[in-house]
Order: sequence, then structure tokens, then C-alpha cells
Amino acid sequence: MKRHLLSAADLTREDAELVLSTADEMRSLADRPIKKLPALRGRTVVNLFFEDSTRTRISFEAAAKRLSADVINFSAKGSSLSKGESLKDTALTLEAMGADAVVIRHGASGAPHRLAHSGWVRSSVVNAGDGTHEHPTQALLDAFTMWRHLGPRNGGTLDGQRIAIVGDVLHSRVARSNALLLRTLGAEVTLVAPPTLLPVGVDTWGVETSYDLDGVIPKADAVMMLRVQRERMNGGFFPTAREYSRRYGLDGRRMATLQDHTIVMHPGPMVRGMEITADVADSDRSVIVEQVTNGVAVRMAVLYLLLGGSEPAHTEGDDL
Amino acid sequence: MKRHLLSAADLTREDAELVLSTADEMRSLADRPIKKLPALRGRTVVNLFFEDSTRTRISFEAAAKRLSADVINFSAKGSSLSKGESLKDTALTLEAMGADAVVIRHGASGAPHRLAHSGWVRSSVVNAGDGTHEHPTQALLDAFTMWRHLGPRNGGTLDGQRIAIVGDVLHSRVARSNALLLRTLGAEVTLVAPPTLLPVGVDTWGVETSYDLDGVIPKADAVMMLRVQRERMNGGFFPTAREYSRRYGLDGRRMATLQDHTIVMHPGPMVRGMEITADVADSDRSVIVEQVTNGVAVRMAVLYLLLGGSEPAHTEGDDL
Amino acid sequence: MKRHLLSAADLTREDAELVLSTADEMRSLADRPIKKLPALRGRTVVNLFFEDSTRTRISFEAAAKRLSADVINFSAKGSSLSKGESLKDTALTLEAMGADAVVIRHGASGAPHRLAHSGWVRSSVVNAGDGTHEHPTQALLDAFTMWRHLGPRNGGTLDGQRIAIVGDVLHSRVARSNALLLRTLGAEVTLVAPPTLLPVGVDTWGVETSYDLDGVIPKADAVMMLRVQRERMNGGFFPTAREYSRRYGLDGRRMATLQDHTIVMHPGPMVRGMEITADVADSDRSVIVEQVTNGVAVRMAVLYLLLGGSEPAHTEGDDL
Repeated sequence: MKRHLLSAADLTREDAELVLSTADEMRSLADRPIKKLPALRGRTVVNLFFEDSTRTRISFEAAAKRLSADVINFSAKGSSLSKGESLKDTALTLEAMGADAVVIRHGASGAPHRLAHSGWVRSSVVNAGDGTHEHPTQALLDAFTMWRHLGPRNGGTLDGQRIAIVGDVLHSRVARSNALLLRTLGAEVTLVAPPTLLPVGVDTWGVETSYDLDGVIPKADAVMMLRVQRERMNGGFFPTAREYSRRYGLDGRRMATLQDHTIVMHPGPMVRGMEITADVADSDRSVIVEQVTNGVAVRMAVLYLLLGGSEPAHTEGDDL
Repeated sequence: MKRHLLSAADLTREDAELVLSTADEMRSLADRPIKKLPALRGRTVVNLFFEDSTRTRISFEAAAKRLSADVINFSAKGSSLSKGESLKDTALTLEAMGADAVVIRHGASGAPHRLAHSGWVRSSVVNAGDGTHEHPTQALLDAFTMWRHLGPRNGGTLDGQRIAIVGDVLHSRVARSNALLLRTLGAEVTLVAPPTLLPVGVDTWGVETSYDLDGVIPKADAVMMLRVQRERMNGGFFPTAREYSRRYGLDGRRMATLQDHTIVMHPGPMVRGMEITADVADSDRSVIVEQVTNGVAVRMAVLYLLLGGSEPAHTEGDDL
Repeated sequence: MKRHLLSAADLTREDAELVLSTADEMRSLADRPIKKLPALRGRTVVNLFFEDSTRTRISFEAAAKRLSADVINFSAKGSSLSKGESLKDTALTLEAMGADAVVIRHGASGAPHRLAHSGWVRSSVVNAGDGTHEHPTQALLDAFTMWRHLGPRNGGTLDGQRIAIVGDVLHSRVARSNALLLRTLGAEVTLVAPPTLLPVGVDTWGVETSYDLDGVIPKADAVMMLRVQRERMNGGFFPTAREYSRRYGLDGRRMATLQDHTIVMHPGPMVRGMEITADVADSDRSVIVEQVTNGVAVRMAVLYLLLGGSEPAHTEGDDL
């Protein structure tokens, strides 16, 4: 695996499968009384968040702490570091303070790449969401969740599995990263969205597109609903909330058309009653809560693999 | 002890005494060079604060860290998790991330109970203050402080000890939790407040009430002053600040009427000059600072007892 | 060394040299896989920040964690602790919670001294910047950086080395602390600033002053540029931005007049193009990034020396 995790597109199938199998080992920790490994003891992980995202931040924080790393949270919003200081100087500062990995969330697409490829830092850079561009650890945790559920009945892979990703694809970095990664893993992806919510250039992604949810989901092995941002509703190119729910929401009636083994996913946070009804979200098919657990396992795997967590932990006892 | 700590009313006398004796062991740690136990190593405590309360948050944080737990602070105020997401989904998310205990502070009375009794989470829920309802760890630390000071001259218990709780009882979760717990522990509680600041239904609490501070305190073994919230002054049902201090404030003249062994308490933060004068707050009778120390010890005891912190720490060396 | 670090003026030459040599040992840790020492295990360091300063806060946080201390971050801004509560009661509270060191940043000059000398707390107080008064750990890290670069060609000391500190001295606690400390260490300091940006009473500091940057820097062994606060520009007593850059900014042309061994420093964050041009900031002479690394090492040294970090770590295995 490379030194950074910037884009789902950078991962080879071999890379991705290494993350999945490592995540599987990490997940087994959750059942132990001491959910902690000394693997990254003495390493420092900095959460550099230019946008608020409590959910993602605490997932990375829990992952790093479970590997015994030190975590420093750095909300750049409103900090003096962000005022008048360039991303470059912020990066150089964190590096100089001894950051081994920088987990970055930024409103501008490409910011993590700039950080990683500028030669400013030696530390590993993990993209935790950049603009509307990518969110690769979300794609990895989604793939891990599918692999755990669909793999056993499919020779241990996602080859040929049909994944429907439904909703506001246009504004979703989750959809993009998922489409890229799932294709690498051999799955067949169909994006289902109103025409106004499909991005220009989606035909180059190597996926199918459809406007017809009822036609797609009976054949799907996994159905992933995307979060709808209400503030984009009624903005001209978006249908009304009621219209959206009727055409692209997942309710009990639609869920009844799924195959027995099909799972329902959502990256969260959900707007219950909009893109998904409460009965679907809480049904046996829903793996939404498990996605969160898998998120910690996948981020542990990513940090472990990037930081080469095989260093001896027995130097712990060294004294000054 | 049960799995959660939601209300002082839920504690049997046996439960409460177990917390006090455990807190006593925890307190003895404070005198050691390494103020840390490995008891909760590998466990995760989430501070889920929907209201700001730095004082309570850092007390729980210090307690959890001294037991070697990992702590994740989560200020829900303004976070994306709280926007449009239900308490249920927030709870499911924290549980899925591996929280062993959720310490919750919420503006709505009953929110911790909803969290604990909904079946959403397996983790322990600790009420760190809900609306005007309860604040059970504050009551436990107050009882612990009384027990340390009054117990030795009273056969090791609070039986029959007279406790005066003075001030804005109406808006005080501290007063309610204290009244409930102290009664369980055998003490006799008198609430002293202007008629407009006593809650409806106080006659069902099993405590005395009085409007006459000077009549009550000479017989008290402990006098607990409540914080006065200035913003409630002059609002019609509240006396003016000057009038309040004159009738319900504790000053040097009143302190001189106390018995020799009587202690003065305050949950903090104080408004010096309003409900308590500076000379009283800093006098030898004041145990206000000790209450803070005891708060950490009591919260250590609660986390330790709820999380069954007897797991072996020697798995720490396990590697991947 | 004394119990507190409040002012660079309090440090004897012996004290300061002890910090430098200890920082040197700490710095060597940065090259090890496990950048962590158990020296302060079980100790609690509270970052009490009444002003935002992410850069300084995370430097102290990284330093404390690398010594295995527990860190509690406490942003007093807008907290209930700061509302209506005196600095005294905040201090008593932190002490009672078990803080071994309080790192304080405050907008009022002298606040750390009040905290330390009031008799309120037994814990060590470290001044992390108070008003326009002092910032002693910044001065120590600057001195450490100079000592590493200039010491080897000067008998291992800063005796007689010429240091130019350039810019808004009037509002700079960094300049004041540096001037005091460097003099103690035997260096010769010249402050270079427009007359309106030199403080009254600078003639008592034991340093030279000059308005003529071009005359001073060819003789300097280190040139330290101070941050210019744009908001103070055009305020009557400050030149315009353009005028400032022209007369007091460090650009490539001026850098060419420096001696071969002369280093360029800046406490950060820089305003590139104002007080320093990008080519100078990124040049080989610039030790600006190294200052950040040295900041962590110096803060480790300070915490280690103040907290007497020689306590045995082997009690770690004690159980309840």
C-alpha cells in the first residue's frame, strides 16, 4: 500500500483486499474485553478538520486510540492557524510537531492531494472527505460491510455483485468513492438518481445509471441510500421533498421487492422519513449500524497499514 | 449495582454505600505519584454533552483517564450529528463505535432514561445532568463529602444527620438528586428557599421545607448553598439580588451560628457575594474545594462499578 | 529550577542552560520509532486557554503526551467556568481535580503570576502567553534553535552572538521574552522597528535599538522576524503595509547581505509577503520549521523539569 490514502481510484484490487482482510482482524478486537492494540504506540495522529464532521472525526479518533496512538484534534475552523496561514504552513507545522499521519477533512476538492504531493510533509495523509470529490475510507467501510455480508455466498469476493447507489449522486463524495472502489473490486454499480442529480461525466465512471428505482432494486444485492440535504430541496433542479420521497425514497413497500439476501445501507446521518423510512432503517436487512462499527475497523486497518504498525512495542519501558 | 446511573432515586442504600466506599479507595490514589489505575484500559468512555458544562466534563474526563480508559469528547452542540439526527441514531452510532459508557448531559429532563431504556444501546449510561431533573453523580459526591466529614462522629453513616439545602431549589437538579439520595442514606433534609423557589410537589420528596434560614442552620450538620442564577433575578417570582442575599445568603454573621462540626458546601461555580460571601467560601468550614476532588473520585467509582473494571490488564501486550 | 515558569526574566543562566540541554535529549526522541517516554505517566497537564491559540496548545499537548501525561484541554472561552467565576475559583477547581501542571494562556498580562503566587494552587504554572507581556517557552525554543545552530562554532554558548529581532516589538510578548532570555544567555540583542512600534521603557531592557534594518542585519548571527498584525496597520502609528514591507520586511535582496552562517527565524504564523517573502521563508537559511519541532522538545523539557519526572513508572502495574 502507498504512503497516503487520497482517493479510492488509487487503490489496486490487491490494496483494497488487504485493507478488507486487515479490517476483519481489527473487527474481531471489538469482542475482546481490552479493545486495544499497542501497534501504534508512540505515533501521533492529527485530525485536521477544516469542516465540522463529528461522526468522521470520532471514528478516526476511536480507531487511532484503539491502536494506542496519540491523537491530537485540530479543528481549523476559526483557529489562528487557519487565519492568514497557508495550507502549506499549517502542514509544515503539523509535520514539525511530529505528526505521523494527518487525517484531513477539507471543503476544497483536492486539498488532501495538495498536502500529500507537495513534498511538504513526510507523514501519511488520509483523505477524510474533500469537497464533493472523495471520501475513500467511507467507500472502504461500505465495501467491507458488503464483503462481510455478500462475500460468503459469492466465493469470498464482490465479483459480479450488483450494488444500487440511490439519491443525490451529484453532491456526494461517498457515491463517487464507492463507485470507483466497487468497480475495482469487481462489483457492478448502478447509480439511481433524478437526471438533475447525476454529475456531468458520470458516463466515464464505468457504472450504469438509471432514473427508475423500482426497476433496479429487485436485482440488487445491496442498496445504498444517500443522505438528502434538505437545503438543496426546491432549489430549482431538485424535486420537492414529497416528490423525492415518492420516487427515490426507500419504504416498506419497496423493501418487499428486494431479494432475500439483499442488504440496505446508508452512510449516515439519515433523514428518517425522507430518503429512508424508519421501518426500513430499523429492519433486519439494514446494516446501517454495522457500517459504523466497520468504519472504526477499516480506519484502524488504514492507519495500521499506512504507518507500518509493526514496530516493536517493547521499547515502551525505555526511560530517559 | 445496575448497568446505568440515571437517577439518585434508583440507588438502594447498599448501592450508594458501595459507591462511597469505592470512592474512598479511589481518593487514596490522589496521594500517590502515579494517580492512575489500569482498571479500564481498552474501554471507551464517550462524553456526550448537548449542553456546555466544562466543569462536569473535565471531571468525568479526568476520572476516566485515571482509570486508563480512552475518552472521546463529543460536544453535540452545533455538530452535524445533532442536526436532523435523532437521539436514537446518535446513540446507535456511539454504541457502534464501541462506547462502553456514555456520559450524557442534556437539556431535556429524561433524555438519559430514554437513551438507557430504549434498548438502543448495550453500553452503560451515566446521567451527567438532565434539564431541571437530576444530577446523580453530584449528589453522590456531595454525600461522599458529608460522609467523610460527618461519618466518623456518627458511627460511619449519615443516619439522622441534618442537612440544610438552601436557595433556588425550583431550578436545581442538584437539590432534587441530593434530597433523594440523602434520604436513602438516612439523613434528614431541610430545603430552605423563598416560597416561589420551591417546586410544586416538594411535599412528596420526604423532606422538610422552611423559609427561615436563621431558624434552620444552627441545627444543621451540613449547609449546602445552591448557585443562584442571576438571570432569574427580578423576574417577578424572584426577590431582588440584595433581598436574596439578605434573606438566603450565607455570610460571616450567619456562619457564626453554626455548630462547631458543621460543614459548608456549594456545588460550584459560586457567585461570591450573592449566595455566599468570600470569607465563608474561604473559611475552614468550607469543603467546597474538596467537593471537586471528591467529584473525580466518585466518578471513578461509578465508572469502575458500572464497567466492571476487573478485567485483566495483562492482555495489554497482545499484538496483532 | 523553580516550581513555575512564568517569565523569561526569572530564569538564571543555569536554569536556562538546563532547559536547553534537557530539550536536546528530548529532541533525540523524535528520531526513534516510539517517540514516547513514561516519565510523566499518571500526571495530569491542563491546558487552560482563555485565548485561542491552536498552535501553542497542540505543541504543549504533543509534548505532554510524549511524556505519557494525561492532557485535559480546557478552552475557557465561553465556558461556564469562566462566566461569573473568578480566576481563583477556576484555579482551585483545576487543582482539586488533580492537575499537576496548568499551562495558561490569558489575555491579561500577569494572569499566570496571579495564579502561581496567590497560594491557590500547588501545581506548577506554565505561562503560555499573557497579554503583551511574556511567552517564555517561545523564548526558550528560539534560544534552543539558535544554540543548536550557532553554538557549535561559538564554544557551545550564545555568548556574544548578535541577534536582530525585527518588527512590531511593541505588541510582541515574543520579543520581550526573547530579549530577556538572550541577554541572560550572553547574546547581544538589537531590536529593529519603526519608532512607533518600540515600547516605552525599552531602554531598560539592556538591548540595542535601531530603525535601520539594512545597517543591522549584515552583522547579525540570527535574524528573527516578528509577525505583523494587519489589523494594526494604517492605525495612525503604523506605516502602511507596503511601506512596512519595504522598510522592515526580509526579502531575497536583504537576505543576500547576511553572513554565511546567519539563520532566519520566525515564531509563526507567518504572513508571507508582508514581513517575510516566500523565497526567504523557504530558503536554506530558514529554521522556521525546525523552531516548531524544537518547540515540542523544549516544552517536554519544561514539563519534565517542573514536574520532577523522575518518579518510578513501575507502579503502573498496580491494580485496585
